[in-house]
Amino acid sequence: MSLLDFCDQNPPSVAPESTVAEAIRLMLEARVGAITVVDAERVVAGIFTERDVMRRVAYAGLDPARTPLADVMTRAVELATEATTDSEALTVMLTRHYRHLPVVDAQGRLLGMASIRHVLCARVDQLLQELAQQKAPTAARN
Amino acid sequence: MSLLDFCDQNPPSVAPESTVAEAIRLMLEARVGAITVVDAERVVAGIFTERDVMRRVAYAGLDPARTPLADVMTRAVELATEATTDSEALTVMLTRHYRHLPVVDAQGRLLGMASIRHVLCARVDQLLQELAQQKAPTAARN
Repeated sequence: MSLLDFCDQNPPSVAPESTVAEAIRLMLEARVGAITVVDAERVVAGIFTERDVMRRVAYAGLDPARTPLADVMTRAVELATEATTDSEALTVMLTRHYRHLPVVDAQGRLLGMASIRHVLCARVDQLLQELAQQKAPTAARN
Repeated sequence: MSLLDFCDQNPPSVAPESTVAEAIRLMLEARVGAITVVDAERVVAGIFTERDVMRRVAYAGLDPARTPLADVMTRAVELATEATTDSEALTVMLTRHYRHLPVVDAQGRLLGMASIRHVLCARVDQLLQELAQQKAPTAARN
């Protein structure tokens, strides 16, 4: 299974020219903690998270309605592709303390957003299935 | 194992009279996404999360330095105790879309903070151990 299978495959995205307020509105609407910033060709330009809202906007005393997203987004984004496994994604997220990882195609265009929660839940499900098969090997073979 | 074993047992906490800016400062310092609001006896009075910063402060256009935490924290907090199992905590967190669950003693005083990430990681570890024992039952019995 590809990482894409554990992803939000219709994640919200926003243009770098948008304001922080608009990005927040989209995140709240989609009930997500991070949004991918994409250019007109849907190529990933950055990521903006609720941690960024806290640190770079609220704590910094900026006005969300007057702050362009391009000023506060993270530009150097770690990206996954369709070839990335869930284990690889998990390792990156756990070691670098990321909660989200955009998944892109060969042109860098956004395909989906992997979250550590979805990947961990999927891992638990996989392990439970493996365990059930181990406990009932004959039944599993039939 | 108690839920406490999977917890941050020294979580940051803050008084309801503090400002949002102070709560944010403590969350950023501890690198956590939620902080428990406690009274002078350390009894849990509420919880405040980075989602709240996004929704109730930044999006609402409030000034973090002038907004008392008591105005924007969540008061009716779901709480866990030392008797709560990790499965019970996980069920509550997944069904209610909570990422954090304060753990309290019989008097409602803060003992630790469980996060869905820690609980899921612990679950993965448990299942991997079980699976290893299933695969090598003889070795496991010795």
